[in-house]
Amino acid sequence: MTTLKNDLLLRTLRGEKTERTPVWMMRQAGRYLPDYLKLKDKYSFFERVQRPELAAEITIQPVEQVGVDAAIIFSDILVIPQAMGMEVQMVEHKGPILPDPIRRASDLDKLRVPDVIESLGYVFEALRLTKKTLDGRVPLIGFAGAPWTLLCYMVEGKGSKTFDVAKAFCYTQPETANLLLQLITDTTIAYLKGQAAAGADVIQIFDSWGGLLGPEDFEALSLRYIRQIVAALKGHALLIIFAKGAWHSLEEMAATGADGLGIDWCIRPAMARQLAGPRVALQGNFDPAKLLSPIPVIRKEVRAMLDAFDGGPHIANLGHGILPNVPVDHARAFVETVKNYAYEPAE
Amino acid sequence: MTTLKNDLLLRTLRGEKTERTPVWMMRQAGRYLPDYLKLKDKYSFFERVQRPELAAEITIQPVEQVGVDAAIIFSDILVIPQAMGMEVQMVEHKGPILPDPIRRASDLDKLRVPDVIESLGYVFEALRLTKKTLDGRVPLIGFAGAPWTLLCYMVEGKGSKTFDVAKAFCYTQPETANLLLQLITDTTIAYLKGQAAAGADVIQIFDSWGGLLGPEDFEALSLRYIRQIVAALKGHALLIIFAKGAWHSLEEMAATGADGLGIDWCIRPAMARQLAGPRVALQGNFDPAKLLSPIPVIRKEVRAMLDAFDGGPHIANLGHGILPNVPVDHARAFVETVKNYAYEPAE
Repeated sequence: MTTLKNDLLLRTLRGEKTERTPVWMMRQAGRYLPDYLKLKDKYSFFERVQRPELAAEITIQPVEQVGVDAAIIFSDILVIPQAMGMEVQMVEHKGPILPDPIRRASDLDKLRVPDVIESLGYVFEALRLTKKTLDGRVPLIGFAGAPWTLLCYMVEGKGSKTFDVAKAFCYTQPETANLLLQLITDTTIAYLKGQAAAGADVIQIFDSWGGLLGPEDFEALSLRYIRQIVAALKGHALLIIFAKGAWHSLEEMAATGADGLGIDWCIRPAMARQLAGPRVALQGNFDPAKLLSPIPVIRKEVRAMLDAFDGGPHIANLGHGILPNVPVDHARAFVETVKNYAYEPAE
Repeated sequence: MTTLKNDLLLRTLRGEKTERTPVWMMRQAGRYLPDYLKLKDKYSFFERVQRPELAAEITIQPVEQVGVDAAIIFSDILVIPQAMGMEVQMVEHKGPILPDPIRRASDLDKLRVPDVIESLGYVFEALRLTKKTLDGRVPLIGFAGAPWTLLCYMVEGKGSKTFDVAKAFCYTQPETANLLLQLITDTTIAYLKGQAAAGADVIQIFDSWGGLLGPEDFEALSLRYIRQIVAALKGHALLIIFAKGAWHSLEEMAATGADGLGIDWCIRPAMARQLAGPRVALQGNFDPAKLLSPIPVIRKEVRAMLDAFDGGPHIANLGHGILPNVPVDHARAFVETVKNYAYEPAE
């Protein structure tokens, strides 16, 4: 096993004091990088995801070109529904389409809990290849969607602002919803253990649509299943939960034993710390749209964010994925400002 | 002036104890009601908004058919950009399109601060006609979009999940953004004073996209202008601010002197009360998607919501607009459960 040259992220997640704040960006591997766009012109989305040499190349681009402190494997949360037997189409400018969504109990018969090595081995291969190519430069992050977020797509069949079809499914057929969530959870646990075995040092659970649920529903439809995943991954990898908008359950998320919690820009860091308690690392929370500001404004605002996270372990990140139209030098300004924070005089 | 037979909403907003919790539903006039859909088949969206007899008929439908404790005038927040000189198209299933959006300082030259009687007199006429037809049965609510939410549409030119174009406009051209927000604010104040003069007892400010901003930006781009509106309306009408998702600024919103604050279903009522303080009425916060649940579940969940709002003035409402596919008897179950709350034995 290669010793990591930069293990800031891992030490922060373990609650250790570090010489500076580690930084990475959600969706850092992808759409705003010109070298990624060249690959996008040549290969379809699922070719890029499924061919380990392409996924590894895309994963490493931001490490080399933007200087982040961690790599996150280039993949997609919808590989799980795909492996469970659903068709997933990626439509440019429209997002994912699942043409044959789950709507009733009998639809579950179409799903399988797959052998993850058989159906998702390409992700493990991409992780192994990335790990080898990184050669200990930075840690490697694997990920999966939270069961609730995957249910949203599997039932709604497409993206949505409010996922009303998915919510109505849960409210009118709660037993079927729970069966589906448990199937997804079981698959996800096997998948993430495989990712850890293939070299992922850290796992992030993306609950992109957690914020659509009130606190009681978040517990019943999301956290209950995330808790199983966190427990199963203990000892396999460090774990971060990012449930966008679900600030109301930070205390409950911290109580799962997760090592880190992602937060978006709509909660003040001091409030997040108060809710989450002193132990867990907080990750975030720069407004991605602010990376469109002029660079001097970005530098000023990033320093203000770092000031606000004073006290308790912190991983600098955006509050959601980086936008496609962010100039690369703006992304670099974000990363560099974090790295230089301790050394620059305050304004 | 007609004496109101049911003034529960007004007394609750004034902080008085009432015999029961008043109830109405955002978007109650419209899309889930069969009688509305008949008018929709016959008249275009702007015909329904601009013809006072149609707007009044639609406004009163839920009072008669669902039994709500207030009427809210049938209109649209985008009548303001329209009155300021912008073209607004309503495209079925796609939402609003503003084909010539604001993108730079020179685009402001195309806008005017309109004479509201000339350009929006049809709203005042609809309010007067509604007031007369209601004949004191329930109070009448007028409304406007918050300046920030209107800027979102005027700059983005259409609906969006994240309004990145609008946000980038504010982050790269802050002076122009502030000029635009002030123009909208000035127009809105004149418009809302006109609504109060035409019979609106209560005004609600809808900041549908306030939740896209972090706390500092919400202050700079939204609350700063809402504050002007609240101050200008004092003595003209009671005022409710509903900034969806902006729970982080409940304290600051209460400090504007508003009489009521809307909250969505992602914040626990006790937390909202703690943040907002004891004075202001809280309005909400039933998840609109839950109205798709079976009626016994609706009744149970509505009672749980009312239990959770115990302590401090409360107006029962949804946490966002009612969905088009809600059966009318489900909407009625929501309203009736609130009305019968005190009289039913707890489960």
